[in-house]
Amino acid sequence: MKKIAVIGYGVIGKRIADAIVKQNDMTLVGVCDVVSDWRIQNAVNKGYAIYASTPEAEKEMNACGISVKGRIAELLTKVDLVVDCTPKKVAAKNVQAYKERGIKFIVQGGEKHEVTRHSFSAENNYQSALNLDATRVVSCNTTSILRTLTALKKAGLLDYARGTLLRRATDPWESHLGGIMNTMVPEREIPSHQGPDAQSVDPDLNVITSAIKVPQTLSHLHYWNIKMTKAACKEEVLEAFRTSSRIRLIQYDQGLVSNNTIKEMFLDMGRPWGDMYEVALWEDMLKVQGDELFYAYVVDNQAIVIPETIDAIRALTGIEPSAEQSIIRTNKSLGIN
Amino acid sequence: MKKIAVIGYGVIGKRIADAIVKQNDMTLVGVCDVVSDWRIQNAVNKGYAIYASTPEAEKEMNACGISVKGRIAELLTKVDLVVDCTPKKVAAKNVQAYKERGIKFIVQGGEKHEVTRHSFSAENNYQSALNLDATRVVSCNTTSILRTLTALKKAGLLDYARGTLLRRATDPWESHLGGIMNTMVPEREIPSHQGPDAQSVDPDLNVITSAIKVPQTLSHLHYWNIKMTKAACKEEVLEAFRTSSRIRLIQYDQGLVSNNTIKEMFLDMGRPWGDMYEVALWEDMLKVQGDELFYAYVVDNQAIVIPETIDAIRALTGIEPSAEQSIIRTNKSLGIN
Repeated sequence: MKKIAVIGYGVIGKRIADAIVKQNDMTLVGVCDVVSDWRIQNAVNKGYAIYASTPEAEKEMNACGISVKGRIAELLTKVDLVVDCTPKKVAAKNVQAYKERGIKFIVQGGEKHEVTRHSFSAENNYQSALNLDATRVVSCNTTSILRTLTALKKAGLLDYARGTLLRRATDPWESHLGGIMNTMVPEREIPSHQGPDAQSVDPDLNVITSAIKVPQTLSHLHYWNIKMTKAACKEEVLEAFRTSSRIRLIQYDQGLVSNNTIKEMFLDMGRPWGDMYEVALWEDMLKVQGDELFYAYVVDNQAIVIPETIDAIRALTGIEPSAEQSIIRTNKSLGIN
Repeated sequence: MKKIAVIGYGVIGKRIADAIVKQNDMTLVGVCDVVSDWRIQNAVNKGYAIYASTPEAEKEMNACGISVKGRIAELLTKVDLVVDCTPKKVAAKNVQAYKERGIKFIVQGGEKHEVTRHSFSAENNYQSALNLDATRVVSCNTTSILRTLTALKKAGLLDYARGTLLRRATDPWESHLGGIMNTMVPEREIPSHQGPDAQSVDPDLNVITSAIKVPQTLSHLHYWNIKMTKAACKEEVLEAFRTSSRIRLIQYDQGLVSNNTIKEMFLDMGRPWGDMYEVALWEDMLKVQGDELFYAYVVDNQAIVIPETIDAIRALTGIEPSAEQSIIRTNKSLGIN
């Protein structure tokens, strides 16, 4: 049983902690944060060992009646691997500590590739992460791009991909703190960063993205124009997507006409927070025209990287040499398929 | 002086009425509608002759103290051309009346091409509309597609175009009656109708679009991936766009980072309703990579067809044989350039 710590108990951290608990080859030693309000109370209620990131945070937590196990330095002595889910600047500082202590670590997609010099997407490059000291699980958007384009690539269908990414403006829990209203805000640069980011996992992908923020908080939605290597039929394309257990083909004609209906369906399914770990790709909307392919899908930005992170833990710790086996185990534990 | 009537005094009709008044080769004989509330009061205040579409509407208008000049049938006896801006089903019925009376007429983009068997976009096919009995000014999105792709085509740069259209959910004035909140709603069909619609004006265009509604009311925003006929430099592309007086190159780096800032700028300029007749295309965001071109622009769905409709009036009535001259006159009257 590999011993794991989660540093940063936010949108991603709290989900990863729960996912670790569901595995039978790793154990959650503790979670670490600075907050002492309702957010960390969730971890207290679940019985997780709570550690404080700073002396001030420890004092505050104690004042709030939270039983603190210790500080981050103590937690680091007890674990084989750390999953860091803290905000950018904090993560950079933490990484120094992990390196000094020789602890394996995983950072999230907000960090730069250079931090770990390996970026991870389970269906694409699990093998290359085996027994490494560190990796970066790429961001939600990049993960979705890699899953879909890898499926097309493996089927020999992908020439190049051009995508328009409609991004959720902010996360639901913090939408009272700031967002955008009744407007649309493009990213200044074309290509946007997600295309090059996908190339940090697979340098051979010919992919260019543009991105824009829209005034909603539910999920991202991508539109893709794909040039295929040859004229193909729709069934060939669907067959390629079906090889991925983390792409879920959905039907517009079954009432899934928007990202809010998709969210509701996953809540109906009883997934925690209504989490959608899969890329939800509209099968009936998908269109093939000669050697061109057009499709759209929805990305749950809070959830999609959770199974990837669990797989990354297995790869780095070497407890599972096979990508396929790790994915099967992770999927089963999270109710995927 | 050609005598013009505007039937349907809504979002488009009220703007066209004002634009007609600003021309020196046509006159507004009257406007016709069914409502008797604040909406028609705008026309009353401007001193426009008010006609009622139905006996019931006339009665209601009189009861509200609106001085009604007569019914639609009477208005039709006084004019050379009718611009119909009524909702779909009403327009279909009206068209029958125009045809029976042998009155030239223009319908808006909500109608089908078959209604007039000619669809209009000034910079593309003004000449082919000269002295016809009827035309259809294509929709806001289609107009923007035609302007931009026509500019690229004339410069010999356009091979094919693939676009993702982020549509405003509803018009501002009626957003209390229904809209979408915190979601994104794709159109079921890829291609969406705008690509084929552009081909109703220019059958040679190779264009495919996908469309999605976003929860805001300001304007549409398009993202385009263009395959050019050759590798070109950015300046060549910009030069092509500059040949259109109705494409306005804007700078993201001058604070125009979203569609709400663009709207505010046009309000600052003193345009009525803050109307943007031009396509606002981000010059600095535009990217060329070999023979591929990427850009984004904003479309004011309430305003973009207004200058087109004025040009269509000139073409159908034959009062101006030159597209270029008509465009210059319309632009000058509306403050374009």
